Amino acid sequence: GWFAKPSNTQNQKDSSHYLKDFLEEMKADKIREHLRKFTQLPHLAGTEQNLKYAEQIMKEWQMFGIDSVEMVPYDVLLSYPNESQPNYISIVDHLGNEVFNTSLAEPVPQGYEDISNIVPPYSAFSAKGQPEGDLVYVNYGRTEDFSQLQREMGINVTGKIVIVRYGKIFRGNKVKNAMLAGAKGIIMFSDPADYWADGIQAYPDGWNLPGGGAQRGNVLNLNGAGDPLTPGYPAKEYTYRFSPEDGVGLPNIPVHPIGFHDAIRLLNNMGGEIPPNNWKGALNVSYRIGPGFTNEFKSQKVRMNIHTNNQVTRIYNVIGKIRGAQEPDRYVILGGHRDAWVFGGIDPMSGAAVVHETVRSAGRLLSTGWRPRRTIIFASWDAEEFGLLGSTEWAEDNARLLQERAVAYINADSAIEGMYTLRVDCTPSLHTLVYDITKQIPSPEEGEEGVSLYKSWHKRDNWTNDRDAPRISKLGSGSDFEAYFIRLGIASGRARYTKNAKTERYSSYPVYHSVYETFEIVEKFYDPSFKRLQAVAQVRGALIFLLADSQLLPLDVNEYADSLRKYAQSIAQLAQKNLREMETYKVSFDSLFSAVENFTVAARDFHERLQTLNKLRIMNDQLMHVIFAPSSHNKYAGESFPGIYDALFDIENSADPAKAWEEVKRQISIAAFTVQAAAMTLTPPA
Amino acid sequence: GWFAKPSNTQNQKDSSHYLKDFLEEMKADKIREHLRKFTQLPHLAGTEQNLKYAEQIMKEWQMFGIDSVEMVPYDVLLSYPNESQPNYISIVDHLGNEVFNTSLAEPVPQGYEDISNIVPPYSAFSAKGQPEGDLVYVNYGRTEDFSQLQREMGINVTGKIVIVRYGKIFRGNKVKNAMLAGAKGIIMFSDPADYWADGIQAYPDGWNLPGGGAQRGNVLNLNGAGDPLTPGYPAKEYTYRFSPEDGVGLPNIPVHPIGFHDAIRLLNNMGGEIPPNNWKGALNVSYRIGPGFTNEFKSQKVRMNIHTNNQVTRIYNVIGKIRGAQEPDRYVILGGHRDAWVFGGIDPMSGAAVVHETVRSAGRLLSTGWRPRRTIIFASWDAEEFGLLGSTEWAEDNARLLQERAVAYINADSAIEGMYTLRVDCTPSLHTLVYDITKQIPSPEEGEEGVSLYKSWHKRDNWTNDRDAPRISKLGSGSDFEAYFIRLGIASGRARYTKNAKTERYSSYPVYHSVYETFEIVEKFYDPSFKRLQAVAQVRGALIFLLADSQLLPLDVNEYADSLRKYAQSIAQLAQKNLREMETYKVSFDSLFSAVENFTVAARDFHERLQTLNKLRIMNDQLMHVIFAPSSHNKYAGESFPGIYDALFDIENSADPAKAWEEVKRQISIAAFTVQAAAMTLTPPA
Repeated sequence: GWFAKPSNTQNQKDSSHYLKDFLEEMKADKIREHLRKFTQLPHLAGTEQNLKYAEQIMKEWQMFGIDSVEMVPYDVLLSYPNESQPNYISIVDHLGNEVFNTSLAEPVPQGYEDISNIVPPYSAFSAKGQPEGDLVYVNYGRTEDFSQLQREMGINVTGKIVIVRYGKIFRGNKVKNAMLAGAKGIIMFSDPADYWADGIQAYPDGWNLPGGGAQRGNVLNLNGAGDPLTPGYPAKEYTYRFSPEDGVGLPNIPVHPIGFHDAIRLLNNMGGEIPPNNWKGALNVSYRIGPGFTNEFKSQKVRMNIHTNNQVTRIYNVIGKIRGAQEPDRYVILGGHRDAWVFGGIDPMSGAAVVHETVRSAGRLLSTGWRPRRTIIFASWDAEEFGLLGSTEWAEDNARLLQERAVAYINADSAIEGMYTLRVDCTPSLHTLVYDITKQIPSPEEGEEGVSLYKSWHKRDNWTNDRDAPRISKLGSGSDFEAYFIRLGIASGRARYTKNAKTERYSSYPVYHSVYETFEIVEKFYDPSFKRLQAVAQVRGALIFLLADSQLLPLDVNEYADSLRKYAQSIAQLAQKNLREMETYKVSFDSLFSAVENFTVAARDFHERLQTLNKLRIMNDQLMHVIFAPSSHNKYAGESFPGIYDALFDIENSADPAKAWEEVKRQISIAAFTVQAAAMTLTPPA
Repeated sequence: GWFAKPSNTQNQKDSSHYLKDFLEEMKADKIREHLRKFTQLPHLAGTEQNLKYAEQIMKEWQMFGIDSVEMVPYDVLLSYPNESQPNYISIVDHLGNEVFNTSLAEPVPQGYEDISNIVPPYSAFSAKGQPEGDLVYVNYGRTEDFSQLQREMGINVTGKIVIVRYGKIFRGNKVKNAMLAGAKGIIMFSDPADYWADGIQAYPDGWNLPGGGAQRGNVLNLNGAGDPLTPGYPAKEYTYRFSPEDGVGLPNIPVHPIGFHDAIRLLNNMGGEIPPNNWKGALNVSYRIGPGFTNEFKSQKVRMNIHTNNQVTRIYNVIGKIRGAQEPDRYVILGGHRDAWVFGGIDPMSGAAVVHETVRSAGRLLSTGWRPRRTIIFASWDAEEFGLLGSTEWAEDNARLLQERAVAYINADSAIEGMYTLRVDCTPSLHTLVYDITKQIPSPEEGEEGVSLYKSWHKRDNWTNDRDAPRISKLGSGSDFEAYFIRLGIASGRARYTKNAKTERYSSYPVYHSVYETFEIVEKFYDPSFKRLQAVAQVRGALIFLLADSQLLPLDVNEYADSLRKYAQSIAQLAQKNLREMETYKVSFDSLFSAVENFTVAARDFHERLQTLNKLRIMNDQLMHVIFAPSSHNKYAGESFPGIYDALFDIENSADPAKAWEEVKRQISIAAFTVQAAAMTLTPPA
């Protein structure tokens, strides 16, 4: 029972027929309906409304006819503002009177005036407190910004409140950097330089962020731990919980986000030095660094008033399954979150609507007699916004099964963040599949009737230097694929519609995590025809269909080898700028290049052996297990050698270069081993 | 290609035929020959002679006709005495003159007078140094011994040299306890109470340890790390090595072992209190605790002179393979070490001779047309005595392959440590297989012709309280299965001939790790007919044969469920002695019992579904993956809940009971999760 010649080509013909039906069944209008339905009311994780949506999704998935749907609850640490004591920031005079207070809420968008339960902008998991002090402006709050502040400008932020602009790095890292530098509070604002598209109006007349809008978000440093109180284990009723003081990644200083109207008021009278040009945003202020205000206002201080509470709260994942006919113990997962900061018009419901339509189409296909070769799992995750909690707890709950059985994980967060072209981030072994798929899907752009999505995408975002094909990036972090990709080592990918990265310089999209992420912003601006979302649905859908239904897993390890070589070359090149130190500390990349060469040969041999195809089950397992995660590093997959990259980065800030170069050498050794181990996975098993 | 009905019963008939041939081919005389051949010369890990034996083994395995044999080297940290500066311990007078020195070597056994390269007794990885001070006697050097010394007897060993007797716990833990207590050196001796069998003569007239003999051994605290300089990664040429100061588990005080003749001289004049009776050994001394000597000798001190060196040294594993016919990517491993402290008559060559004969018999079987269903891997590990280094490095080298593909690991250290009956330690899922096998193998005991090994064993060591069957124990630690069982989570087992545990109270066997472990001690005393070793060869051989060749994996998860229940009951009972504190700190075992119940039901359902047997590949994979390791704890497998056990044990020594009970609760939660996860492994995959 272990061998299978793909003699039954009839099956594969049927399968491609079914794929066509599956993709054609996904309708733009239906996606519109789903999005409308699930963005009527705020549905923050842990609230009644988000449970109601979960129940509705469960019911509808059952109606769609997939084999099973269940609700999977966990009890995790969430964080909410105190309803009776609002959070805000004040400027106080020398008598302690509040002479200016930041706004308590965003102006509500039209049509939503009667809606209750809109949570005001806040930084989830902020510490409580009312620190008071002088402000210091630290650009984006990156390591290099704090370093420049301290070394070049000679400013110590100990006991100060720092104000930084959003963008460039995850907000939790800004908070961590502020804590490490000794600040007693941190304020984050959305600068138009980073959150405003030229020539576009503010919402509702356009899709820019109004001056009263602000970006919510958690400020944890979880490193993929999931629920801060149950690292490594699912947050079930019986699970042991750390006390909150021992929780993972919780900041110990107050944090608060504001919009640019309020930011102008805080920055306006700041004193101190004029900063370098690359510290200046687009507001009509000087961006002086402080500490504190100019002479005239020197007696004024800034006070933060933060009363946000952490509490263990029940969350709900919805898990739907289609049982595989031949390989029920091989899993292909399509998962995305449901919880939203407010309405979630873009994040995440544009993605959730797409998943919903995918489930509906799969249900239809089942009713026509189709059943996939492998098991397909659909997931509606909860509490992604609080640190990827729902997806990580489920991964922890099922870790051993998934490590042994999961073929691939496709993530389904926001399906659109711009109006330009497709964006795909994935494991290199999925590159070929993504190209094949997009050649079969039509472009959603007006005037491109009869043009494939591949062609449309290729035209707009060519890989140029590396190769003549649409650009595909490596997976970053910050959405629900993290536990699957980085911790469990499952091949993963994500696809969405995006902006033109060359001309549109703002981070994510302007209204990100604000109350202005409504159904209307998608309907009026991002995708009036809903064809872009339809195209994303077809890409995500075709990925799970082919991963679940192809006899031979559609994973290409030659692509993995190519990516490895490029990453190895680029990191070795990066190290070249320290050529003399490389000699002093005897740092060599030889072992890494040698392992990459071994992997390249093993991959080529593997695909050659595939031609005979008489050991399908065995070779599918080999394909499934070629992945450069889990990695000791929690940010990216191992194939881009993040450990070496970070070690090289740390050299500049290190007081002990010999030690820092030791770490580079250690990381090269780990990378070489990881590549070598992957090469071994691909060689004949005995 | 994924389903297989076991329709081909012909195959299974053939297989049992082949098994019979395989077992009958293993000959007592051949085992005798192998043992004689590989115990002629000392072959310490890292020496030329041990490489020569490796080359010989490789050559002979190739001649035996298995598919491939290769030598796999690693460069690991080993430790040797300094040849120009011997290690010894002195009693020095007030002028610093050495008035007594311990012996520099064991008296060489007859017939071996001309042999060079016999390493004198030493503690591998001891720190160098010449500490001088008063002796304190601390019984076995266990946590409870040091605790009793400090709390009840009021003696602080800071700055003292401690002397402890061997036995009860691993010597590395004695050293760690001494370091934690502040001692500046530690001497370990073999007390006849622990290493002398009544009515037996010392070697060569019997098998007891002569007074001049001493136990070598490493004194690391590796916790399964393998090579101290490359934890987590194989010690290849390119692997990054920690500097020796950062090495894992290296002691920072001098350590030295002595025999009881020398111990009498050190203990004889000791002053201080008379110890409790259970601190007294069998020597004709008072076992006074010290510190230091009696009045008359008070000015005398003890000085240790230790010059042992650590050095990175090349070691060699020999790896042989028989390719599986149907499932080449499923591995069954039989591995045992080859390196010995001196000749290795018992440890390890009695086991290595058995492996050698198993390989020979397998080669013969191959030549008659047999080929196992799954791949069999034979391993001759190096440097086990220095911390399981060869086996752990190979496990690290192949970690991902083994986690995904290994079915079982059978360990082959010393095959005999007594003359009484069989001893088996294994994963509970192997219980049924062990019973089945031993019913097919004849007893090696004189006067038991026609009696099965099972019956012979059952008569001598019944499980009594738990069940009416031969006793099988859980796997402990201290041999090469550790990395496979505990770290990689592979079902594992070991079998050997043993003493009568009820009447023979000494640890291991008297000459353990001394120069008196010769070929002759086996030939004259332990197994003159070599039938006991033959029986062990047949047990180990039948285990790998049936694990590799049965269509359905011969693993019984109902046995796993039974063991879980017993362990859960016994640990809950242990906790009952703190009933009041259990209430105070709200400690409950409910979640654990509930998970065990879930597992029991899943196991029963699984074996019921097996009756239909239409999903063989899937169910074999499920069987393969039911294992309660890897465990966060490095000493035992998870199924006996070692984490809870240790947490309960720590309560007595804890200064903060609330915190200690929190740890108990956390460990119960982890155990419940682990059992629940295993239950999930057994349920239908979709």
